[in-house]
Amino acid sequence: MSGHHYGRAFALMREASAETWRDYTRHAFVEGLKDGTLPREAFLHYLRQDYVFLIHFSRAWALAVVKSETHDEMLTAVGTVNALVAEEMQLHVGICEAAGITQDELFATPERAENLAYTRFVLEAGYSGDLLDLLAALAPCVMGYGEIGSRLGAEATSDTYRDWIDTYAEGDYQSACQAVGDLLDSALTRRIGADFEASPRWDRLCHTFRTATELEVNFWQMGLTP
Amino acid sequence: MSGHHYGRAFALMREASAETWRDYTRHAFVEGLKDGTLPREAFLHYLRQDYVFLIHFSRAWALAVVKSETHDEMLTAVGTVNALVAEEMQLHVGICEAAGITQDELFATPERAENLAYTRFVLEAGYSGDLLDLLAALAPCVMGYGEIGSRLGAEATSDTYRDWIDTYAEGDYQSACQAVGDLLDSALTRRIGADFEASPRWDRLCHTFRTATELEVNFWQMGLTP
Amino acid sequence: MSGHHYGRAFALMREASAETWRDYTRHAFVEGLKDGTLPREAFLHYLRQDYVFLIHFSRAWALAVVKSETHDEMLTAVGTVNALVAEEMQLHVGICEAAGITQDELFATPERAENLAYTRFVLEAGYSGDLLDLLAALAPCVMGYGEIGSRLGAEATSDTYRDWIDTYAEGDYQSACQAVGDLLDSALTRRIGADFEASPRWDRLCHTFRTATELEVNFWQMGLTP
Amino acid sequence: MSGHHYGRAFALMREASAETWRDYTRHAFVEGLKDGTLPREAFLHYLRQDYVFLIHFSRAWALAVVKSETHDEMLTAVGTVNALVAEEMQLHVGICEAAGITQDELFATPERAENLAYTRFVLEAGYSGDLLDLLAALAPCVMGYGEIGSRLGAEATSDTYRDWIDTYAEGDYQSACQAVGDLLDSALTRRIGADFEASPRWDRLCHTFRTATELEVNFWQMGLTP
Repeated sequence: MSGHHYGRAFALMREASAETWRDYTRHAFVEGLKDGTLPREAFLHYLRQDYVFLIHFSRAWALAVVKSETHDEMLTAVGTVNALVAEEMQLHVGICEAAGITQDELFATPERAENLAYTRFVLEAGYSGDLLDLLAALAPCVMGYGEIGSRLGAEATSDTYRDWIDTYAEGDYQSACQAVGDLLDSALTRRIGADFEASPRWDRLCHTFRTATELEVNFWQMGLTP
Repeated sequence: MSGHHYGRAFALMREASAETWRDYTRHAFVEGLKDGTLPREAFLHYLRQDYVFLIHFSRAWALAVVKSETHDEMLTAVGTVNALVAEEMQLHVGICEAAGITQDELFATPERAENLAYTRFVLEAGYSGDLLDLLAALAPCVMGYGEIGSRLGAEATSDTYRDWIDTYAEGDYQSACQAVGDLLDSALTRRIGADFEASPRWDRLCHTFRTATELEVNFWQMGLTP
Repeated sequence: MSGHHYGRAFALMREASAETWRDYTRHAFVEGLKDGTLPREAFLHYLRQDYVFLIHFSRAWALAVVKSETHDEMLTAVGTVNALVAEEMQLHVGICEAAGITQDELFATPERAENLAYTRFVLEAGYSGDLLDLLAALAPCVMGYGEIGSRLGAEATSDTYRDWIDTYAEGDYQSACQAVGDLLDSALTRRIGADFEASPRWDRLCHTFRTATELEVNFWQMGLTP
Repeated sequence: MSGHHYGRAFALMREASAETWRDYTRHAFVEGLKDGTLPREAFLHYLRQDYVFLIHFSRAWALAVVKSETHDEMLTAVGTVNALVAEEMQLHVGICEAAGITQDELFATPERAENLAYTRFVLEAGYSGDLLDLLAALAPCVMGYGEIGSRLGAEATSDTYRDWIDTYAEGDYQSACQAVGDLLDSALTRRIGADFEASPRWDRLCHTFRTATELEVNFWQMGLTP
């Protein structure tokens, strides 16, 4: 799993955070999804927190529309907001309802500190910086789930969490990851140049990417403790 | 034309800016669209500026997604961003192409000061305030065009600008105005209460609405001088 | 310790979060400062994290200047930024240097997740909302330290952490707390009215205050584990 | 008047907008201040608008504190906010009072469209971009007044507007211009590198600088028509 198919910048950022990236994409929670040993209670707890997460993550993608400088940048960001608000959030509502969690209960989920830390970090990076700072904070979630979905789609030994895995393994989600990878590459090239990794900003952008990845690790860890 | 069908808050804000509202919705530019006497050159100049306007206006609606506090608020704002970015901007591209203005020329339109003043005012009101401050700045454009389209749909004595008029007279656009009116009412009620016009904030919100209306007047005036 | 001397709104918000407020202002870390049993290593660890905290907290107070609507609001916020950037941050530099931590080491302190969560929450509340949302997130830190300083100034049974205690117990800091309390009251009255606690917004503002208080508890807890 | 003493980036940006810069710094309003032929009514009208301008310009400098990434960046920005809020705004209050305009009248000055356009452009550039975008929008006002003050200090043939000229000709203001010029150079170098003018971002930053300069021209023009 090289990550190169999500674009050049992502592959470089992922490499610069290799160890943390592994902690995130091979977390015990993920392995529990793969072999079906993850307790149902933990999964549902995670799903409810992830619903709250998606509210703020959608807001952060809407901020990417605000921070766009070209029509193409706007279109990709708008497409992502749509996919999140109209589809992914509905998916969570559906799975939760099937598990006996009503929509009202879902909406009323109290936000855990690990959840809050992550989304506020992403939003603040976006508000205080430009589109690059925001994309560096958004990328680990988008592409990490793409990578996890792709791997578990091939390696899963249980059907327990098949629906969840398929969501991120399938073509639509993988295409979205590629679109975001292309956006990251083109936004960097437009603002910094083709050799963006030689810019003084690069280290800071990689640092933002790594912090977001660490916050993903904390999020999985939180998922294990309902 | 009472404006009441776009919600209670809009009707009150419109009434509080009655004279300026009239200057805006009955501007010479508008009357020229109605009877077909508006010079083609002025119309195309306006259309190109309006394209640049829509870029920033879409960004402002995306900011409304960021500033939303409920799923319903998010959905209405996302729907408006979509309509603007995917549809209304394409409409301008189409009309301009039919008039011999290429997409490249359209994209390269230098922004006039009256245009810049308006969109930056709206965006800054949104960034510095909450959703209410932003909606008060967004409403005059959305509903004013609805009201103009509705009136000209009934009163136009020429078919010269029929396509433009129909865009804003027809059901889709009128429904969007009602959705934004409902959003304004519910966002005010949620944050201030049902008697929002008794709040100390009301005057300031009406002032924002009036300033945006004045900037609409300046925009039409700019349209008359290519 | 009623808190009433820091203004009416603060007293009400504090009351609405009574239990969490107690967890914060009577945390084991605080009691260790009082009787001198807090390990030196924990104190210095806390101080370094608090330096990083103050960078972002100062940025949040600068955002309060941006979000001000009156000259008086601006003056109080500017005064607070000055006190933080020019004085309180220097105090930390001084204590750390005396303890053998160079300024370079201090600047290079890696930010802990509990620290990041808190400041990004405050900044995002300010960016996404208006001055009231921001002040509700800023108040627990300002006034909590005022209350702790005042109590420990009277109750401390050891001189080990006397310098730290005096900073927050003394007149300058207590005056700053009163100025912020007055700002909170007047900003609420200006925007909502004198009976601000009857407004639908009040619950949300109290929720922001409580979340910030919970993040203070987490910060002390982090301080205990270098 | 080369402008080089306000730093390298400023000299380059100024050169890239040479004609507009000349329109701004040699505007008829400025020449009227130099030879004393500017009508008193126009000067007082300008001064009242400039007071409203300074409120929002101070907010924009506070935003520069929020967008800072180093302690040095914060210190320069905080120093500028202080100078604006505590000193320059008071100067305007004093001159206006001496001219029979009470503080209440001054505060109640209705904002002209040319004024609003400028400050909202600067604030929005700062909110949507990073510190570089904000500084490129702030520089023309700061350094332009420095250059005008310096030239008129040497060339003025009348004492009518001597107080105003001295404010910007004297050492304190000139030092502030140098500090802002240094901040611009170091912020660019930190984020882009020493050859910042070779970056793809440079054109956009120069465009922001030029737009702000055009808005200064419009502001002087507005000053001539009370």
